[in-house]
Amino acid sequence: MTDTCTIDMIRAAAQRIKGHARRTPLLTSPFLDKIAGRQVFIKPECLQHTGSFKFRGAYNTISGLPDSTRAKGVIAFSSGNHAQGVALAAKMHGVPAVIIMPADAPQLKIENTKALGAEVVLYDRETENRDEIGARLSAERDLTLVKPFDNPNVIAGQGTAGLEIAEDANALGLKDADVLVCCGGGGLTSGIALACAADAPGLRVRPVEPEGFDDVARSLRSGGIEKNNRVSGNICDAIITPQPGDLTFPIMHRLCGPGLTVSENDCLRAMALAFLRLKIVAEPGGAAALAAALFCKDDLQGDAVIVTVSGGNVDPAMFQRALSTLT
Amino acid sequence: MTDTCTIDMIRAAAQRIKGHARRTPLLTSPFLDKIAGRQVFIKPECLQHTGSFKFRGAYNTISGLPDSTRAKGVIAFSSGNHAQGVALAAKMHGVPAVIIMPADAPQLKIENTKALGAEVVLYDRETENRDEIGARLSAERDLTLVKPFDNPNVIAGQGTAGLEIAEDANALGLKDADVLVCCGGGGLTSGIALACAADAPGLRVRPVEPEGFDDVARSLRSGGIEKNNRVSGNICDAIITPQPGDLTFPIMHRLCGPGLTVSENDCLRAMALAFLRLKIVAEPGGAAALAAALFCKDDLQGDAVIVTVSGGNVDPAMFQRALSTLT
Repeated sequence: MTDTCTIDMIRAAAQRIKGHARRTPLLTSPFLDKIAGRQVFIKPECLQHTGSFKFRGAYNTISGLPDSTRAKGVIAFSSGNHAQGVALAAKMHGVPAVIIMPADAPQLKIENTKALGAEVVLYDRETENRDEIGARLSAERDLTLVKPFDNPNVIAGQGTAGLEIAEDANALGLKDADVLVCCGGGGLTSGIALACAADAPGLRVRPVEPEGFDDVARSLRSGGIEKNNRVSGNICDAIITPQPGDLTFPIMHRLCGPGLTVSENDCLRAMALAFLRLKIVAEPGGAAALAAALFCKDDLQGDAVIVTVSGGNVDPAMFQRALSTLT
Repeated sequence: MTDTCTIDMIRAAAQRIKGHARRTPLLTSPFLDKIAGRQVFIKPECLQHTGSFKFRGAYNTISGLPDSTRAKGVIAFSSGNHAQGVALAAKMHGVPAVIIMPADAPQLKIENTKALGAEVVLYDRETENRDEIGARLSAERDLTLVKPFDNPNVIAGQGTAGLEIAEDANALGLKDADVLVCCGGGGLTSGIALACAADAPGLRVRPVEPEGFDDVARSLRSGGIEKNNRVSGNICDAIITPQPGDLTFPIMHRLCGPGLTVSENDCLRAMALAFLRLKIVAEPGGAAALAAALFCKDDLQGDAVIVTVSGGNVDPAMFQRALSTLT
């Protein structure tokens, strides 16, 4: 394994996931174009297996392990989308997966992860240290840790979404457009940035984060890794991380345009419009890029914008809250 | 124009709509497989332009008109999905569309149809005769009527969904499966039946209707056209019609397996599971086939089932009612 992700690794990942991950399309709606004041193309990764792009990186990483290593199993820390992606990818490879989840994670996500065949180990966020639990289990069983973003093969897997975006943008003749990516640790953003730089260099990849959790936007401005003051207290839980990754940040710093931030309410409104106009289900963090396209239009360039809807794992109560913005 | 639809017309339609209609995939979820007791493959036509399969038939029909006829414009009667499909297809061809809608149709559908560029003419269901209004407008302006289902080119357009199902089923090696189709007048059902009979003859196409509105199921049993006693009073409004079409019924009678019926509550539960497991938005009538796959499993054959989700044009209040079945 190299110490960073390259375009060749992304192309290899595309071969590995072919026929296993879904090849998502670009969706459109004249109603959204009108709101945004430009053409809007939506990449619905909520339609990916397990309801988020995370399956791409998990599948690629597990698939790329040496057979004897993979056979012993994998381990991951996650309360959400990465957990389900790793669980399904491990199941598809017929190897064990241990997922360490906080005991207060949403019950549905815990149940889903178990139902996908993973062994779920719960810990108490207040009294237990998840890293110690993970280290002990890994050592006992010789499990391979699958990090959520700061791993070259994970970035390569997420980057396959970028190859698809570049291919579709070229087919559509889009030469001057922002590509807005819902951004947590930067795995998806950096992977898409690498892919677009190679295959569609006219596209500008830009991270979108929740207001108050804009570590990546600030890091891109300052040129060094900046941290968030908080890591909870926002409905966009799927894209909140303490800071950009050591591997993802240099890639984003080299290739990405300035970051954008969106409010919780704008994410809820974007979820409602995705329901009404695209017939897809987005979670709050998964709707952040669409929110930026629709409601931050003066901050964008070009006559088209491409947005990722990165995930759709939202509980009914939160979705109902989003729908209530329509009335 | 011939007096019925043939497989050659469906193949010609596929060429006409290519690059204009969306090529929808087949989605899956291990959670749905478990409920159904067999593999479930979902064709999400809610992701089609205007949120339903109706765009396929409308685009094919308008595209196939002689240039001088098309240029004068088209007219359609519809309170819902057909209206929006015809409006967008006419707009894409740069020709006028007049849509005659009941004044009590959902406000959102009226607004959408107008926003897609159509001239909407409202009539009072109690005091006015829509056929007279349509005949007068057609005569005055020499508009071409686009019927919702009983037109060979409309059936051919809807049948393109069947060519895609057959292609994907063959690629997946599915040789013995029911194909469940949400069925109103039978345009989609008969089109898919023709396509599958030609390209995937091991598949059994079967209509699914709401309980109490099972005119097609009864007609298939009796061998002649049977009527519904009522044409309103069910949440599956998109698939309720007085009786099967004169063109669609003989095709269904020749090619389709027995019909299935589902309750309103099962459609709501299927909508909720499509939200939770597929991240797609289905309307009640659009979820009827999925409801049959999940909740009528003893009436199905084979170790796999393919279902259409035919539309997603549902208002937030009805969607919230569906989500409430999850708790």
